[in-house]
Amino acid sequence: MAEKIRIGIVGYGNLGRGVEISVSKNPDMELVGIFTRRAPEALSAYFDDTAVFAMNDLDQFRHEVDVLILCGGSKSDLPEQGPELAARFNTVDSFDTHARIPKYFETVDIPARAGKKTALISAGWDPGMFSINRLYGEALLPDGETYTFWGRGLSQGHSDAIRRIPGVAGGVQYTLPSETAIAQVRSGSRPELSTREKHVRECFVVLADGADAEKIRRTIVSMPHYFDEYDTTVNFISAEELAHDHQAMPHGGFVIRSGNTSDENAQVIEYRLALESNPEFTASVLVAYARATHRINQAGQYGAVTVLDVAPGLLSIKTPEQLRAELL
Amino acid sequence: MAEKIRIGIVGYGNLGRGVEISVSKNPDMELVGIFTRRAPEALSAYFDDTAVFAMNDLDQFRHEVDVLILCGGSKSDLPEQGPELAARFNTVDSFDTHARIPKYFETVDIPARAGKKTALISAGWDPGMFSINRLYGEALLPDGETYTFWGRGLSQGHSDAIRRIPGVAGGVQYTLPSETAIAQVRSGSRPELSTREKHVRECFVVLADGADAEKIRRTIVSMPHYFDEYDTTVNFISAEELAHDHQAMPHGGFVIRSGNTSDENAQVIEYRLALESNPEFTASVLVAYARATHRINQAGQYGAVTVLDVAPGLLSIKTPEQLRAELL
Repeated sequence: MAEKIRIGIVGYGNLGRGVEISVSKNPDMELVGIFTRRAPEALSAYFDDTAVFAMNDLDQFRHEVDVLILCGGSKSDLPEQGPELAARFNTVDSFDTHARIPKYFETVDIPARAGKKTALISAGWDPGMFSINRLYGEALLPDGETYTFWGRGLSQGHSDAIRRIPGVAGGVQYTLPSETAIAQVRSGSRPELSTREKHVRECFVVLADGADAEKIRRTIVSMPHYFDEYDTTVNFISAEELAHDHQAMPHGGFVIRSGNTSDENAQVIEYRLALESNPEFTASVLVAYARATHRINQAGQYGAVTVLDVAPGLLSIKTPEQLRAELL
Repeated sequence: MAEKIRIGIVGYGNLGRGVEISVSKNPDMELVGIFTRRAPEALSAYFDDTAVFAMNDLDQFRHEVDVLILCGGSKSDLPEQGPELAARFNTVDSFDTHARIPKYFETVDIPARAGKKTALISAGWDPGMFSINRLYGEALLPDGETYTFWGRGLSQGHSDAIRRIPGVAGGVQYTLPSETAIAQVRSGSRPELSTREKHVRECFVVLADGADAEKIRRTIVSMPHYFDEYDTTVNFISAEELAHDHQAMPHGGFVIRSGNTSDENAQVIEYRLALESNPEFTASVLVAYARATHRINQAGQYGAVTVLDVAPGLLSIKTPEQLRAELL
């Protein structure tokens, strides 16, 4: 076997932890360690033998790390770290503020090119695998419509909005694709659907002592922007049920392309993710793209790239010959 | 707009006709014409203004055609035409005999390299889009299992087998994924399933005058290799119903990857095609890959390639900047 691809993790929350686990499932990779802004000795990694280093020592590892996986957030971490680290390391990140991707691409591309490094940005599932499937759908069925549905998934912002209501002791909110809307889209009829029509909202709420359930239900379903335009159901549960049944971070959704190849024939392409852990799946995508990023850099292609620029075969541990024989 | 990509079609059956229609839906392409071994004047194309030429005149178009789409069969047409034409043209084909793909790749690769041409082989949906999804599934969830289901689709070989039974005046057979098996796979439980357990067979049969329906039903469901190991249902219909309801060529299926990103969390990725016309969808895939093949050749990459070697972005009419802004 060739030398292993040496991975470094920058930032250690749910995503970094997912990357740590994912690297262990890829036998052609090894984890150099986690780099953190916290005190390294204060960080408790998933595996006992995972090395933890101070972020300030990262430069000492310039020749020990093939790809850095950046596990910070898109709001403040990545806009700063992405361009800075891409000058000195191959990087993979999950920058997911859709509207700012073109700008972020530019800010990473320039230092990466200058440093002869490759920076793969915005990997994950949306942006990421959903983007790839929007592209394939459009290219294969140019006469058609694309529909993205999200869920069943935990929505952090909407859960926070519920918890701020007086009388609410705890709660979570899930976004679900509307079954009616999915059925319409699958039929090939190409309906026009707003985000509101495509999704429903489901809330699980723990009441504070003496709170009025019906009043809280009305407050939730009529909350402007968050709930008022959606079909929203509110379920009241106990604190024990909340702790037991609602601690996971499920997510997923559908990308459906519905199109016609002739006046007579409609075709439907559907891509679906059902994820028990959103951060662990995103982490697995980042790790597979780290393999591709290493190969792209070794082939002499420098600068920023996205998942749309990466041939599927580059993600696989298998050789092109194996892939043709076993998977094609 | 840049110059259009000039497409030639070799062979004109259902697939060639599908390519003819598909090219008309891609504004960056133009159809040079259909090349046929039949007498050109005897061929009736879908569009009145489509040019039809004799196969023997193909070499006169060496500088008029950017990509030839080969629409012959995998049994006898492509093994001969693929290597011969790849020496002189960029080509795209749908060679679909899975076991022979590695050998076919070699026989096309050598002349294509020598002639500085690019030959994309085995495009379509299986091999093709299903292969891509098998690869993505494996790469993203290395700790997992992949399941391919086919159907609901018309099976030509099984339909022929029914029609050969004495007393049968006509009939068709559809293969369907087993709903029970799909539910098991979607649950994330990673069942072991044979092809037989994953599919059921549905027959629509027209009886000849005086034929014994129950005897024919038993002959079908007990036919070795074809039906005896499957759950098979036989429906008797009239010749009018056969003509009216069973002339389409639907197909499709699922590729499902079920895997774990940690001991705690299962993840399911599902890719589904629901096709009203199998040949038209395959044709649309070939046409999108013709765009990519043209670009790959212009970038100086020669020889045989497969869909696994093609970055998604190369399939799109849009620029990389547009793709990042609109689809990522």
